[in-house]
This record gives sequence, structure tokens and C-alpha cells, in this order.
Amino acid sequence: MERLEQQFRFALEADKEKKIGRQTWLSDGSRKENDAEHAWHLALMTILLSEHANEEIDVLKTVTMVLIHDIVEIDAGDTYAYDAAGQATAHEREQRAAERLFGLLPEDQGQKLKALWEEFEARSTPEARFARTLDNCQPMMLNAASDGKSWVEHEVRLSQVLKRNEKTAQGSERIWEHMKRAYLKPNVELGRLQDDVPGDW
Amino acid sequence: MERLEQQFRFALEADKEKKIGRQTWLSDGSRKENDAEHAWHLALMTILLSEHANEEIDVLKTVTMVLIHDIVEIDAGDTYAYDAAGQATAHEREQRAAERLFGLLPEDQGQKLKALWEEFEARSTPEARFARTLDNCQPMMLNAASDGKSWVEHEVRLSQVLKRNEKTAQGSERIWEHMKRAYLKPNVELGRLQDDVPGDW
Repeated sequence: MERLEQQFRFALEADKEKKIGRQTWLSDGSRKENDAEHAWHLALMTILLSEHANEEIDVLKTVTMVLIHDIVEIDAGDTYAYDAAGQATAHEREQRAAERLFGLLPEDQGQKLKALWEEFEARSTPEARFARTLDNCQPMMLNAASDGKSWVEHEVRLSQVLKRNEKTAQGSERIWEHMKRAYLKPNVELGRLQDDVPGDW
Repeated sequence: MERLEQQFRFALEADKEKKIGRQTWLSDGSRKENDAEHAWHLALMTILLSEHANEEIDVLKTVTMVLIHDIVEIDAGDTYAYDAAGQATAHEREQRAAERLFGLLPEDQGQKLKALWEEFEARSTPEARFARTLDNCQPMMLNAASDGKSWVEHEVRLSQVLKRNEKTAQGSERIWEHMKRAYLKPNVELGRLQDDVPGDW
């Protein structure tokens, strides 16, 4: 029974992810989403959109990756994409969190999930590249749906978005093109994203 | 591009699942969870616990099933497990919702996901039986962690829980035994679940 108990201990600890707030507003702008909701959305989108990956991907592996990709934030907190100071210290905090959290699981399972989390962070495989693409595109979809609320609130500049997304096309050219056309360009035109990038992009 | 756009339309519509409240309290008792959080938790638990399924299961198929199992509630609302009147009309409302929601997707994908949802409802495969087991055991885990708050609030009787779980062991005997020992028996002893079942169970 010990193995099953360790797994349930981890499952219960994971419940805390529902309390970790993000900076992305729900599509109706009523409140911001949390990490668990975000991970669910990414997992669903992985299943819907895997056919658009640049390289062939193992869908179950990618889904597993996105389901756990933010679990370290239970200890380390969420670091907003455009918070440079927070990003600088996030890595060490997240490493410690990964040790503790994945350490709750039976050793083989904990190691496997921790390795998947590291793979996601390092963007080192087709699965990780696709997962990172979705991790960037889901908030963009919601930001656009909520009238750019998060971009306006944080006075985000287009150059910051393009910088943050410089590797997004690595997971899926097709999805990145869709992001630019459907979400970025209209919101630059509406002034919700500050246009500081001259010329074509 | 039409296909990608249909998929994103569905992904955006799915965002509404984060607004569908359930009757289960988070483990810390601070608030009730919503459908998206619940689905994330089930998907994670499917990956952690699939080795305990009675029959061999396709894990990706099971994860897909749990990710979408409550999506019809976007239109049909959540029906509490022990609300008999609501349960009686839920089926028709949910069928209409499935038509509309899965109909947003490219036809092949929509049909595939709708069939998976029906399979879950009908408990007709090893994957569906395991998914249903987790769908019953995750709230039980959270109810126990939050001092039986949801059971006490709704004055739930043990006989109701056992009735609702009469097929839970079909997905995993081992998980059902764990549920009884770790979550049900202690809460019956503490009086959080009303003991109306004489003898062994």
C-alpha cells in the first residue's frame, strides 16, 4: 500500500496549485486564472492541436509535461512573464520546489516526472518545444478575448511580447502565425499592446 | 486555416468551464473547486495511478476522457451527486450541450471527442471505468482533507456514498479499498458522514 499512499499524498499536495494565481484574465475578464486551470487548458489544447506541431510529438508525454509544468509554483510562486527581477531568482526557487514535490512520489515516478519538468524548462525535445509554444499561446488567446486587459494593466510593449516569443515558432510555425494574425496584430492596432516595433514582424 | 480556427474557437469556449462551480471544497476548505480544476486533478491522477487499474488501460485515451468529461456543463450546469431531481433531467441537457460544443470542432475531431464523452458516461470500456473511479475518488479525497465539509454541509449519509460508489471498484479494486480505509471509515467514525449502514461494508 505504501506506493499508493505516496501517490495520493502527492495528488493531495498538488491540490494547492489551484491557489496559485496567474496574471492572465479569464476570457470574460471576470477574474484571473490559476495554475491548475491553466494546466488543464494547455492539456486540452495539446490534444486538440498536436497535429500542428512542427515535429512529430508523443502526445501523452506532452500532456503529462503540461499537466505538471507549473507544479513547482506551489512552493516557488508564479513569476509573471514580464517581471525581470522575479525571473532572475525563479530558477533556484523552482529547483528546490521540484526536489521537495516530486520527492513525495515513489522514486521511479518522481524521477520520471521531474525529468519531464526539466525537459520542459530546457525546451530540449519536440514535446517540450510544442508544450512551450502552447504555454505562450494560451495566455495570448485569453488576453485577446478579454480585450487585452492583462497587456493594458501591465503596459506591455510589443517588443516584449516578440522577445518572449522568439522561440514560439519552434514548436509550431502554424500556431505562431495564427497568434500573430489573430491576436497580436489586431491588439497592436487597437493600442492595447504598445507598438514599439517599426516595420514587419 | 479553417481547421486551426475551429480548434481555437473550441479552446476559447472551453475557457468557460473555469466558471462552473462544483460542490467539492479545496483541501484547505477555503473555497469550492470548479470543473476545470477538477478535470486537471483527474488527468494528473490518471497519470499517477493508472498502474492500479483492474484492466490494462490506454492512458492517453483515459486522460483525454477526463479532460473533457465535464465540458457539457458549460451549457448544462453542474448537477450535484446527491441531487436526485437534478440528476433526472441532466441527461437531456447534457446531450444538447454535447451537440453544440463538440460541433464547434472539425467534424472528425468533434465526433471522436463526443464518442469519448459518451463512453465515459456509459462506463463501457476499461478506460471509462477507470476514469469514473477517479471521478468518484478525487472529491472523496478532498472531502476527507477538508474535514468532511461537503458531507456535513449536505448531511450526506454513508448509504448514499456507498450507493453512488457501487461501481467504483470496477475501475480499480485497489483504489476503492484505499478510499474506504483512508477516507470513508475515519469520517464515519468522526460523525462527518452519517452512519446508516449496519455491519461490514
